[in-house]
Amino acid sequence: MRIITLGTGAGRPTLKRGSSATGLEYQGDTFLFDCGEGTQIQLMKTPFHWGKLTAIFISHLHGDHVNGLPGLLGTLSLSDRKEALKVFGPVGIKKLLQAHRECQSLGLRFELEVQEIETGQTLLETEQYLVKTLPLDHVVPCWGYVFEEKPVPGRFDALKADQAGVPPGPLRGQLVLGQDVSLPDGREFYSKDFVGPSRPGRSFVHCLDTQPCEAAVELARGADLLLYEATFCESGGEPAHDWGHSTARDAAQVALAAGVGELVMTHISQRYGDPQVLLAEAQEIFPRVRVASDLDVFEIKRQE
Amino acid sequence: MRIITLGTGAGRPTLKRGSSATGLEYQGDTFLFDCGEGTQIQLMKTPFHWGKLTAIFISHLHGDHVNGLPGLLGTLSLSDRKEALKVFGPVGIKKLLQAHRECQSLGLRFELEVQEIETGQTLLETEQYLVKTLPLDHVVPCWGYVFEEKPVPGRFDALKADQAGVPPGPLRGQLVLGQDVSLPDGREFYSKDFVGPSRPGRSFVHCLDTQPCEAAVELARGADLLLYEATFCESGGEPAHDWGHSTARDAAQVALAAGVGELVMTHISQRYGDPQVLLAEAQEIFPRVRVASDLDVFEIKRQE
Repeated sequence: MRIITLGTGAGRPTLKRGSSATGLEYQGDTFLFDCGEGTQIQLMKTPFHWGKLTAIFISHLHGDHVNGLPGLLGTLSLSDRKEALKVFGPVGIKKLLQAHRECQSLGLRFELEVQEIETGQTLLETEQYLVKTLPLDHVVPCWGYVFEEKPVPGRFDALKADQAGVPPGPLRGQLVLGQDVSLPDGREFYSKDFVGPSRPGRSFVHCLDTQPCEAAVELARGADLLLYEATFCESGGEPAHDWGHSTARDAAQVALAAGVGELVMTHISQRYGDPQVLLAEAQEIFPRVRVASDLDVFEIKRQE
Repeated sequence: MRIITLGTGAGRPTLKRGSSATGLEYQGDTFLFDCGEGTQIQLMKTPFHWGKLTAIFISHLHGDHVNGLPGLLGTLSLSDRKEALKVFGPVGIKKLLQAHRECQSLGLRFELEVQEIETGQTLLETEQYLVKTLPLDHVVPCWGYVFEEKPVPGRFDALKADQAGVPPGPLRGQLVLGQDVSLPDGREFYSKDFVGPSRPGRSFVHCLDTQPCEAAVELARGADLLLYEATFCESGGEPAHDWGHSTARDAAQVALAAGVGELVMTHISQRYGDPQVLLAEAQEIFPRVRVASDLDVFEIKRQE
């Protein structure tokens, strides 16, 4: 599971930090979380196969999180995309995209499946993963997302299987999947004898924009990587919560309460040219923390 | 008069050419022609005082010419702009901007004066300049623009004035402005004796997107600098006109028919990584031609 922060600025893009967007690649599928202005240009700088995007998740409709969407859709269409594309976002996103379609003769050559979210729920589910959402606490309706890999089968002990005389081939695959196997000669092999306990899936959580809230903690609980906004820091003195935002300390407290593996802070206000102050503030509470830059790459490895 | 091409690509941005936008600075005023995605980022790389933008002219509503507008307006608002901003464009632009205002709680802190153009006309006029528009020939309603400096007074012959005993100071300013002057001692000075013939103003013409048409020639007649789209070239074999576009040869023919000072070709399709083929095709017809790159600067100097 690979995550690339495409834009890590807040409110307005700068030459250093673009508007909010984050890409996630998992087993050949590519997902986009938020799509601020310039996202398609940032995607061009990544190894992602973004022409084949599986789904786009928009947190909320402030411009710095969604203004890149019409252009990205236009480019996908010019690039001859034919597959339907799922777009999830708050109520209002259909109207916004409809206005672009009507005014611009967008002429999309693929189907847009836009789903407006009105309640916390599972949005996507396959055999391998699911994507869930909960409402965050911002000045406009805003949704947090968790991308969750399902538990994966335990390790297969090939040496033990050899010693027990399990024939190579598809039979071993059945054992891996938890199925017991009977051979024509009467021998029986039990999955539990050769396969270790199933391993937890990996998870990525996207929490911006929001002030600290229970939903953020719930969404992030036990996540491997929490991407959380830290628009401000406490020492800056801005009324972050009044503006529906978080400080670096808030981010660290959410990460601590949720017991995440790593906290990555993003949506950094342009006033923090050097984000060291944010990092120091968060580290006092939660040491496994980084400040994202545009085009940073984060690999979430499976637990051994 | 300084022009900077901010984005010179066609249809979709690439890492080499951004979406359409061109800035113009004239005596402290700044104007923007088209505003594709990423324009605000490009503006940050220029010396323009774009926070004080005087007016924005949108040619048409295809995404690569207008998708940067909502973000730019949001940034101007976050930058505490208070002055009203004029935006001109085709019918539909009000609805598009209204959708953004409604969906995004843009909360602009300055007044947007949006004028939808329905007929060729003079859009702006001051003592120094005017901006006129005519309809081009694209697949959707599309407007060409000319920014025209008014004729400026002729040169004042200071030596001759000294010899004739014209007192220094504001009297000389009156002579420059064409006013004759009488002194209390009875002496009379006539403007025509000290001031040469008035000099033509400078002009910049913005013609994209369009197939070649009479209006483009009319708009560009005698212009100092014609910025004209050359999405394709003849040898490429694309049905440029069917798509409402021009080739490099078309651009050169319009420039020749209009007798412009210099032709600058822009809106270059991504298929021409090296635009030399466009340049060569145009030069056969009109030698004073360049292909614009992003952030190219063009100074139009006053004729001596």
